[in-house]
Amino acid sequence: MTTLLPDAAERVRHLEHALFEGFARWGYREIIPPTFEYLDVLSAGLPADILEKCYKVADWTTGRILVLRPDVTAQIAKIVAMGMAGRQLPLRLSYRSTVFRYEPEHAGREREVFQLGVELIGADDASMDAEILTLLIESLKAVGLSNFKISLGHVGFYQALLAQSGLSEQGRKQAEFAAAHKDLPKLERILKTERVSPRQARPILEAPGRYGREEVLQWGRTVAGRNARLLTPIERLTKVYALLDAAGVQEHLLLDLGEFRGFDYYDGVVFDVFSANVGCELGGGGRYNHLIGQFGQDLPSTGFALDIDRVFLAFGRGVEQWASDTPSVLVAAPDSHFGQAFQTSRSLRSHGLVVCQETVPRWDATRLRRMRARLRASGASWVVMVGVPSVSSREAVVMAKKARAPRTVRIQDLPPLILKGTHAHV
Amino acid sequence: MTTLLPDAAERVRHLEHALFEGFARWGYREIIPPTFEYLDVLSAGLPADILEKCYKVADWTTGRILVLRPDVTAQIAKIVAMGMAGRQLPLRLSYRSTVFRYEPEHAGREREVFQLGVELIGADDASMDAEILTLLIESLKAVGLSNFKISLGHVGFYQALLAQSGLSEQGRKQAEFAAAHKDLPKLERILKTERVSPRQARPILEAPGRYGREEVLQWGRTVAGRNARLLTPIERLTKVYALLDAAGVQEHLLLDLGEFRGFDYYDGVVFDVFSANVGCELGGGGRYNHLIGQFGQDLPSTGFALDIDRVFLAFGRGVEQWASDTPSVLVAAPDSHFGQAFQTSRSLRSHGLVVCQETVPRWDATRLRRMRARLRASGASWVVMVGVPSVSSREAVVMAKKARAPRTVRIQDLPPLILKGTHAHV
Repeated sequence: MTTLLPDAAERVRHLEHALFEGFARWGYREIIPPTFEYLDVLSAGLPADILEKCYKVADWTTGRILVLRPDVTAQIAKIVAMGMAGRQLPLRLSYRSTVFRYEPEHAGREREVFQLGVELIGADDASMDAEILTLLIESLKAVGLSNFKISLGHVGFYQALLAQSGLSEQGRKQAEFAAAHKDLPKLERILKTERVSPRQARPILEAPGRYGREEVLQWGRTVAGRNARLLTPIERLTKVYALLDAAGVQEHLLLDLGEFRGFDYYDGVVFDVFSANVGCELGGGGRYNHLIGQFGQDLPSTGFALDIDRVFLAFGRGVEQWASDTPSVLVAAPDSHFGQAFQTSRSLRSHGLVVCQETVPRWDATRLRRMRARLRASGASWVVMVGVPSVSSREAVVMAKKARAPRTVRIQDLPPLILKGTHAHV
Repeated sequence: MTTLLPDAAERVRHLEHALFEGFARWGYREIIPPTFEYLDVLSAGLPADILEKCYKVADWTTGRILVLRPDVTAQIAKIVAMGMAGRQLPLRLSYRSTVFRYEPEHAGREREVFQLGVELIGADDASMDAEILTLLIESLKAVGLSNFKISLGHVGFYQALLAQSGLSEQGRKQAEFAAAHKDLPKLERILKTERVSPRQARPILEAPGRYGREEVLQWGRTVAGRNARLLTPIERLTKVYALLDAAGVQEHLLLDLGEFRGFDYYDGVVFDVFSANVGCELGGGGRYNHLIGQFGQDLPSTGFALDIDRVFLAFGRGVEQWASDTPSVLVAAPDSHFGQAFQTSRSLRSHGLVVCQETVPRWDATRLRRMRARLRASGASWVVMVGVPSVSSREAVVMAKKARAPRTVRIQDLPPLILKGTHAHV
């Protein structure tokens, strides 16, 4: 189990804050779901393979089984179905939390994934698909990411191809998985084993290789012909793509008719975010019109989630530029001047400076000389010495990391002096 | 299991942010510990009764038992003992997280407690005790709380009284618990059962009633006489109290020689925060000089934690004043004008406004009229209609919740118009 130490924690919170500020501007409001759910309640919305990987705990007070949330979308679906989030539609919700899954192949932090995401609930039209995608693209751009691509598809097209091929349900699941991983040899074996006709097999084998721009939609329309089950998904995808083009974000898009998400609940336009320097998706999402219905009333919805750790990987080393450059100040005084040192610290803090207060036994020549080494070791940029006998009670002795000699300064003049000598964010 | 819905979540995040901003100004940097720990690792630092109440999960990959953290201080002690947080002392760390305990008597959210806190590690002097207490008081004042008291004691004094009374270990534990709850009849029964002499029993029975200001310290000194085990805690408490007086925060303090915290690891100055309108403590903390040693190297430390839910209770109804008053704007357009509506929304968002984009089938007289009702139902303050046939492509029709008639306005003039008509925080 890994801990995020201060430097990493600061970067994670900074990114989280920047993304959430954006979500809020789009009207998405945060919801904080509990860490546990009762298994019997949540299981309605989650596929068996995900439920298998959940952490489960017995609740001795009720005799029921609790699960640590493996996914926030299903939790929010449950909350909305219960009517807790209000009746005013569409609902725009956001969340930031960790999700938990047993991942035998990955040790440590991988089991606890930092996620943040949004859900747009209660509307099923192409412009809502487009809103979620523009929000995703704008959010990533706003935090400084530019080298990302979104693979955009519609689960309905490939599912319809598989359904009409006569494959067994198990065969269809296997084929979906093979297509999502672009594993053509495996896909061929599945189709061969279940004796799918060459005419039906051809588009199933070709679709995973169809990714790019408008030509993908053209190919899909040709395959669909007048078959409504194939044509409807292609038309929806075409419309969403046109809206995104109108919003001017098409450079980040890559159409992909083999695009699948890992959750069974998706049933419309779906997408994954990729970055050149990360070997897996940074996040993704899509439309889930029938998930909320598993918990009660059906509500068409869409949303996305981002994996914070992976978004960081996408930045590579550039993430360091976010480290705070607020200078820190050490205010040192003997206990006899604790009150004055505290007032000095308070005044500096109120100017936006980071201040640590320290106690020294008493001021003498040796102690004053040692403060140079203490300043260096502490990592602070300034040390302010309060209660030094040779100066007046309204003054302090100040030393900057970058200056050679200490200076005596009036305490009230400290904030402008220190702020001028640095580039603090106030 | 309870969910925090948007209004509550917004207030929690606002409070969390304000408190954390304060902690950061004092040089406390955030650390994010994992949700799980291995039981065999963490158990060194936690008393048996807390470990009993932990949620435990089997880790199938290693065959070990995982616990959901019941307490962050013990986690941080472990991290520091492992040397992960660096060698530069003192270390100032902060955290915000949920902790988990089985609480049969409280259902729901009570099992998952939102906490935030700080730890000051690697220094054992009165000024560090005073720093933690001034930080606590300043933090609560900074978020607008004024009606709180901090009961301040030293576990060493009462423990020394009990130790020299000849009570059995079990008797001492029971007596500590009874004293902390000011349960004098029970305390009397314990002392009687174990036949503690009247001379030894008297201060044990009197101490829980000794709370107030300097006179409490005077009483303690009289009881201590020349007994160093009693005198040392009283002298430390006297010094901390004097430093807090020098910092000007004494109005919030209430000395209490019967003060105990729920964790065995405290071994010095301890405190609890109380508010007139909440029946239990909002948080508390104290010195734990020997906890880190349980995981390796001993490091004197102190810290506090606040229970966010209870801090909210202390505000009573006043907390509503934090609700965001950023106005929200609805930008409505048919799909044909999605791109223009998106650009309009983006421009308004960049001015700090919260904007939801909506799609309408097409603009006609009926639809335009209906937007009045839509505006009211949505809760937004303004609706901006883009792509209306009767106006130029650079204009939009705007309606304010508070104004009677719609107006036609140039799109570039929208941000100042809407900002002027509201009191947005930009």
